[in-house]
Amino acid sequence: MLAVYLENGAVSTRHMPVPERPKGFALLRLLLGGICNTDLELQRGYYGFSGIPGHEFIAEVLDADEPNLVGKRVVGEINLGCGDCPWCQRGNRRHCPNRTVLGIKGHAGAFQEFFTLPERNLHAVPDGVSDRHAVFTEPLAAARQILDQVAMEPGRPIAVLGDGKLGLLIALVLRAEGYDVHQYGHHSEKLQISADAGVVTRLNPEIAPPASYSRVVDATGNPEGLRAAVAMVEPCGTIILKSTIHGPVPIDSAPVIVNEVVLVGSRCGRMEAALPLLERGLIPADKLIAGEYSLRDAADAFARAATPGVLKILLRP
Amino acid sequence: MLAVYLENGAVSTRHMPVPERPKGFALLRLLLGGICNTDLELQRGYYGFSGIPGHEFIAEVLDADEPNLVGKRVVGEINLGCGDCPWCQRGNRRHCPNRTVLGIKGHAGAFQEFFTLPERNLHAVPDGVSDRHAVFTEPLAAARQILDQVAMEPGRPIAVLGDGKLGLLIALVLRAEGYDVHQYGHHSEKLQISADAGVVTRLNPEIAPPASYSRVVDATGNPEGLRAAVAMVEPCGTIILKSTIHGPVPIDSAPVIVNEVVLVGSRCGRMEAALPLLERGLIPADKLIAGEYSLRDAADAFARAATPGVLKILLRP
Repeated sequence: MLAVYLENGAVSTRHMPVPERPKGFALLRLLLGGICNTDLELQRGYYGFSGIPGHEFIAEVLDADEPNLVGKRVVGEINLGCGDCPWCQRGNRRHCPNRTVLGIKGHAGAFQEFFTLPERNLHAVPDGVSDRHAVFTEPLAAARQILDQVAMEPGRPIAVLGDGKLGLLIALVLRAEGYDVHQYGHHSEKLQISADAGVVTRLNPEIAPPASYSRVVDATGNPEGLRAAVAMVEPCGTIILKSTIHGPVPIDSAPVIVNEVVLVGSRCGRMEAALPLLERGLIPADKLIAGEYSLRDAADAFARAATPGVLKILLRP
Repeated sequence: MLAVYLENGAVSTRHMPVPERPKGFALLRLLLGGICNTDLELQRGYYGFSGIPGHEFIAEVLDADEPNLVGKRVVGEINLGCGDCPWCQRGNRRHCPNRTVLGIKGHAGAFQEFFTLPERNLHAVPDGVSDRHAVFTEPLAAARQILDQVAMEPGRPIAVLGDGKLGLLIALVLRAEGYDVHQYGHHSEKLQISADAGVVTRLNPEIAPPASYSRVVDATGNPEGLRAAVAMVEPCGTIILKSTIHGPVPIDSAPVIVNEVVLVGSRCGRMEAALPLLERGLIPADKLIAGEYSLRDAADAFARAATPGVLKILLRP
């Protein structure tokens, strides 16, 4: 079978044996995968990664211990907890210190024809959700995670900084959950996607009024985003950090302390909370698709995904 | 009357008229003042300050609209809200955007024989609390503010980084409120003060185990503190930022986001919550006193307070 392989900055494809299915695991056939910025970072050598990437996917279950799973279309939680540590015992496998992570750390990813995940990680995709929508379940759950971490203030708008893939999903999911969202970005054609869903969009972040939002989400992906967020948030407000930036980010701690601002790091989220939004047709995720490539053209797909301004690139078998 | 004056980095004393008492304000006679690190920063020119500093004090009420106040020993909330903005209307005058601040911004401070504060800012000091304890009310309230912002986890120790004045008060107040506290510092004689109160102390911060605390307070006053706190806090844990550091602090945002850490800026607190701790004899604040100077020796007092390792320096009229 064909697998995408990252090593020393290069994207290649390899022919590899179909992976064995351990007990408790399902054997999955890829239907569609999505290239995430994290995949591009893995390619660039962050985390010392080499291997098969891919953690955004929809797949079909080919084999499993649980017979009812076979044949189902599924998405899957990407963190594989050890099951024994206090984190796993409390049901928080996403923070298991011994975890492996699909396509990121210690577990071969989804950018291959067949791969495996623990059956308990899987979520069946409702029939009404197309593959091209379902492939967004993982990043949509990550976007929605904000609402599992921070209490919003009804009637007050939430500011979202950034109009990349994650910024758009965050704006869309917050809007879908009924909040007023003000999204600040630099690309009118991207902002149009969230504007069409009822998000108030602003093209020039520099005009953001100071100390005007109680909740600000930084999804800019650059250090300037945090600086802007600190300026925009009101005293006792909360900034949600969604931009993973490698290397030190300079932060002026004085206004954070004087204004008693709260900063919340935010990563993965619950797929069971994201799927119903897709099923109800509330997230026009397919509008974020910029292109679809075959696995064998993964190098081209990664190059396209790394092009500034390009939204979601999908991979199919 | 005599007043301490800061200008262009110099500490001097001046003879000035006794301030007029506006309606709603009390005229106060200084009994004892405390030099805070913020005062040293004002001297160094942060915030472009020139004028009469001082915001830690105990005073006697000489005159007031409310006759019952006259003759009382009082401490006072240092933020003077405008009374009209949404923050003041909600009772959060400490974050009023139009506020003046005693001895810091727009309102002459306590390091003079007589000064004024709004009567609503005053708290009567119980008879059982000595001047040398009561003068710590303001920084103790700031230390205790942590508990108004962050829910602690009963049965789990709280880590406090730093053994300066604020670090000690934080460790003491958390201990007084019944929490297990592990304090990390570099000065055995300072750590002994909190150890005597039941705090578990550690002399070598470098041996702090990684990802071992769900709550970490950074009161180190240096950028290394935040780095250490990020390393010590467990996933989904909370770091309370108590160190005001001027200029950009480099922060590695990746572990904050991956581990979904929460950072909470923390400043002033409620005196009504701090005074009962002093009244019950739970805070051996007087052990933090390193020296007491007359107002006329303020320059020497400021120089002494700025000496590394020196704890609280007091000023008396």
